[in-house]
Amino acid sequence: MTGFTEDELIETIGKILSGEAPGVRLGAGRDDAALVEPGRHLVILTADMLVEGVHFELTTMSARDLGYRAVTVNVSDVAAMGGSPRFGLVTLGLPKDTEASWVVELFGGLREGGDEYAVALVGGDLSRADRVVISVTVTGEVPDGGAVTRSGARPGDRIVVTGALGAAAGGLRLSRADPHLAGSAVASEWGRSLLAALFRPLARVGEGQSLAQAGATAMMDVSDGLSLDLSRLCKASGVGAAVALDRVPVAEGVRELCRELGEGDPLIMALEGGEDFELLATLPAGAVQPAAASLRERFATPLTDIGEVRTQVGVVALDPEGRERPLEPRGWDHFAG
Amino acid sequence: MTGFTEDELIETIGKILSGEAPGVRLGAGRDDAALVEPGRHLVILTADMLVEGVHFELTTMSARDLGYRAVTVNVSDVAAMGGSPRFGLVTLGLPKDTEASWVVELFGGLREGGDEYAVALVGGDLSRADRVVISVTVTGEVPDGGAVTRSGARPGDRIVVTGALGAAAGGLRLSRADPHLAGSAVASEWGRSLLAALFRPLARVGEGQSLAQAGATAMMDVSDGLSLDLSRLCKASGVGAAVALDRVPVAEGVRELCRELGEGDPLIMALEGGEDFELLATLPAGAVQPAAASLRERFATPLTDIGEVRTQVGVVALDPEGRERPLEPRGWDHFAG
Repeated sequence: MTGFTEDELIETIGKILSGEAPGVRLGAGRDDAALVEPGRHLVILTADMLVEGVHFELTTMSARDLGYRAVTVNVSDVAAMGGSPRFGLVTLGLPKDTEASWVVELFGGLREGGDEYAVALVGGDLSRADRVVISVTVTGEVPDGGAVTRSGARPGDRIVVTGALGAAAGGLRLSRADPHLAGSAVASEWGRSLLAALFRPLARVGEGQSLAQAGATAMMDVSDGLSLDLSRLCKASGVGAAVALDRVPVAEGVRELCRELGEGDPLIMALEGGEDFELLATLPAGAVQPAAASLRERFATPLTDIGEVRTQVGVVALDPEGRERPLEPRGWDHFAG
Repeated sequence: MTGFTEDELIETIGKILSGEAPGVRLGAGRDDAALVEPGRHLVILTADMLVEGVHFELTTMSARDLGYRAVTVNVSDVAAMGGSPRFGLVTLGLPKDTEASWVVELFGGLREGGDEYAVALVGGDLSRADRVVISVTVTGEVPDGGAVTRSGARPGDRIVVTGALGAAAGGLRLSRADPHLAGSAVASEWGRSLLAALFRPLARVGEGQSLAQAGATAMMDVSDGLSLDLSRLCKASGVGAAVALDRVPVAEGVRELCRELGEGDPLIMALEGGEDFELLATLPAGAVQPAAASLRERFATPLTDIGEVRTQVGVVALDPEGRERPLEPRGWDHFAG
């Protein structure tokens, strides 16, 4: 850290994160720990770590986007339970030569993400590290009996997904593409929407609560790719699934990107690209239309029926002719070679 | 990670951490997030990050001790508020070549720490990283009005500290000393107690609650060294302090170590060595004797009166002749050159 001592930095961060937030008795940088009021509902607890060189590169991701993202990925896990986020904690490892201004920007992004989702950031820890590493914990609330886990999918349920898939993977590919090829794409509307999906992902908090109220039997966020995450949901529920490939919603710009770069399969990017933070849920057949209408009216978010939960274990893909083949659970494994 | 895929590792960790714990509806490795029951009291939230090469070295700290320690340092922050720990989350960054057996040992240590302090570890995240980094969040509870912050010290209050200081710093020095010099020390009773303080620090949970009940006006844990942490407490309270140097409790073995190695000042190690996780508190003068009796009877933990809170800002040291000099707030700054 250049420019600040640890105590000075903690004081500065405390100022960035300060502000009256409901339920906060003692906030960031003030004491050994934070003090908040309990809610009346069940408590959701989730934490995610973002590591430089694994989840992001300092050369392509701004400090502000990184902070915002670190909040969003956790809020998405709360959304996937059907809950409301409440409080956040941030632990941060920083290389010795990190500029204080970069850290201030990072906390600006954390604050921005916190404000977006009404998460009060109440504490955490700072450390030296070889590379930047940020771990955020978010607490949330959900009424008793209202949480939607991964394990409740039943044969006959429909499989639905919010929004569209593959945008973040497209944005990543675009951000890494040869500038000569990608130049005009970056300037196009679809190119910008792909980069926005990568750098400013949205967590579907309202949508998750609506799906829970609509009777979702199982739900999770699509963080590691649809095919891998659906296989996890099915495993947790002890069921199988059939996905109609022509119904999988491919995000705007993904087809254009593949055409422009002359490589890549839009459907594969939608099936296997992670980090879109859309919600994957199962619903009784009769609940799909009302849920879709609710999401459209309240959030302008599409909800797409992409297939069916089956008794037989395993996830299969159905092509437009109705032929089945196994859908390999490919996606993001943090330890895969 | 060698030996496991990410999903297999998460399943294994879920088994290590599993077990019926009060209030846990959905525990580790089960879903997008954990689900726990709310308490009736105020919620304490705290998080700490331990980084390889900064807080520990893999060559000198076992996976099991590291896991135990990662829980303890957070529980100590809950103890310093006068609270009871409840739930924990673990995020972990691991180099690609980490042995699965090492990770299993680490979670064994986390579980052991969780069991020691009745902290149910309910979730977290795994990631790849260049070096091992572990971030633990612990939640706790404290009755409304019962939390002890750093900011309530009043002029005239006595300054007390639990246990004795300098043992972890002594253990660190011993673990790094020339084996020829340190060999017999490591085998001695005092040497072993120093190493135990380093590798298996204790969090003073019961003591923190007793001090809160005894009327502590301010409290914090001594994680970065007495002189630095006392200066923080005084700053937060807007007061000063005078510490009687001959009353500062120097941990058993620290004097022997300095004699054996022929270097180091036991008092400096007690004043500036961090990571002992003793509690530093201020109490009205009349409350010291009853508090000390309570800690002795209930926990066999000494409580030592080391000085007085003053109106005048700044921390001074009093030598046995009553002469004052400023006590420099030296200790552990994670970003100091």
